[in-house]
Amino acid sequence: MGFSVTILGSNSALPTSERNPTAQVLEASGRFFLIDCGEGTQMQLRRNRVHFGRINHIFISHLHGDHVFGLPGLISSFGLLGRTRDLHIYAISDLERLLTPLIGYFNRDLPFQIIYHSFNPEKEEKLYQDQLLEISTIPLEHRIPTVGFLFKEKPRARKINKDVCDFYKVPVKWLPKIKGGEDFETEDGELIKNHQLTLDPPPSVSYAFCTDTRVSDRLVEAVRDVDMLYHEATFLKEQTDLAIRTFHSTAEQAATVASNANVGKLLLGHFSSRYRDLGPFLGEARGVFLNSFLAQEGCSFEV
Amino acid sequence: MGFSVTILGSNSALPTSERNPTAQVLEASGRFFLIDCGEGTQMQLRRNRVHFGRINHIFISHLHGDHVFGLPGLISSFGLLGRTRDLHIYAISDLERLLTPLIGYFNRDLPFQIIYHSFNPEKEEKLYQDQLLEISTIPLEHRIPTVGFLFKEKPRARKINKDVCDFYKVPVKWLPKIKGGEDFETEDGELIKNHQLTLDPPPSVSYAFCTDTRVSDRLVEAVRDVDMLYHEATFLKEQTDLAIRTFHSTAEQAATVASNANVGKLLLGHFSSRYRDLGPFLGEARGVFLNSFLAQEGCSFEV
Repeated sequence: MGFSVTILGSNSALPTSERNPTAQVLEASGRFFLIDCGEGTQMQLRRNRVHFGRINHIFISHLHGDHVFGLPGLISSFGLLGRTRDLHIYAISDLERLLTPLIGYFNRDLPFQIIYHSFNPEKEEKLYQDQLLEISTIPLEHRIPTVGFLFKEKPRARKINKDVCDFYKVPVKWLPKIKGGEDFETEDGELIKNHQLTLDPPPSVSYAFCTDTRVSDRLVEAVRDVDMLYHEATFLKEQTDLAIRTFHSTAEQAATVASNANVGKLLLGHFSSRYRDLGPFLGEARGVFLNSFLAQEGCSFEV
Repeated sequence: MGFSVTILGSNSALPTSERNPTAQVLEASGRFFLIDCGEGTQMQLRRNRVHFGRINHIFISHLHGDHVFGLPGLISSFGLLGRTRDLHIYAISDLERLLTPLIGYFNRDLPFQIIYHSFNPEKEEKLYQDQLLEISTIPLEHRIPTVGFLFKEKPRARKINKDVCDFYKVPVKWLPKIKGGEDFETEDGELIKNHQLTLDPPPSVSYAFCTDTRVSDRLVEAVRDVDMLYHEATFLKEQTDLAIRTFHSTAEQAATVASNANVGKLLLGHFSSRYRDLGPFLGEARGVFLNSFLAQEGCSFEV
């Protein structure tokens, strides 16, 4: 399957004229999962040609305005476009309490249901699963309750090893059983184990989204071996003190997490608007972890 | 003094990738009055280099999301930037009730006061005045309570007619009194009336902002003789039925209001996202009222 992530916004709280607050979409087999929804997300979706109707699940990391103020507008537009399918929103329970009166006032005749799924941000929780992937929370350390999200492709089925099956004369009608994990007994009564008849599947991919947070050993363990990690880098290392005080991270710290957790690729985001040039973030991160990239809006990354 | 208006957004409810929902700023002698505040207004202010600190008054025409969903983000950013000056918001009273819990949650330590000024949208009300201008509401006809706003420069002082004052030997120290409206008695006892000693001041300018509304005779009277009228034109005349049904206007109707009310200049806005090309709006309006313009975002218009 594979994932791809499109960055809609990756600036910190104060947007600039060029950089939007946090939002991104993860695509998995034509389904789009929206992660955070800062102000302007609906316009960024349009600019990046993500079809509104494909979004059925929205994951909100925490309730700071720059991660949620795009929700009322997006929900209104869903309504104006005549959406009828349920919309699932995953967030701590406060969000439902805050959004419900707004939606009730501004969208009296919303033609679809909003289903809120709340969670305890203190512990890992599985939020969603289907045939192909599962999504769970990663508790983070910020000034308010905050989680990251781990998107994990489910283990794929083993593949038929055609040469070996031919050699043991496995009948064609048996192949689905072999694919399902069964062993095979030849006409001579010899038992051929399933792992001989099949090949390892391509490895499952995983993506972790972690903002806003300061770094911790617990976080390193939570994202160990993921293929791609989005990690906030609000500041450069010259502002490490400020990062600690505000429960944020520097580019160097994010890269150290990536390195210690042995991830495949690091996306840096949530840049403070004090920095006009983002080049130094990349330089600082690549000094620690070479496979680092800037999560700039409009960019897509394959996992 | 004179006014200038900068368009931040002039699309109707569904924003497009290129066109933002309603917001504009009126500048009068270095003070900026924000009119409506659709989602993304704070980014549009930055793109148009309007200094946040100059905005102390926000006027909200009505409580449809595309006119207010930018408020929480803008207020948060004011807070992050350390604003301490009061912020005045003019709207029907529902807005305070809806915004207060949001602001309370997302901006616990807002370093400034928000002062809400509510009004009765059924009748004309003066909302604001200072030495230079006054601002009042214009009741409109929309699906929900809606007003426009009339910005009127106060009458300016008459100017000294230097030649006449010299002829009658008015002493220099008397000139402020003449400017203040007094008559003058010459040494021979002749009374010279003030209007002989002074010249008419340049005419006061006025700007009317009218969205969302269907057209009416009452509206024509309310905007009679204004120098510049912003009037919504959600549809082209081929959609007149839809305009009537949704309490909106067509470009032709807006131009007819402008013509009947003898305004100086017409700005068309609040375009439906169904129209990609806005050229036909201008053509349709200019067929009725030649001095029509498209209120496209990023454009400024002098009154």
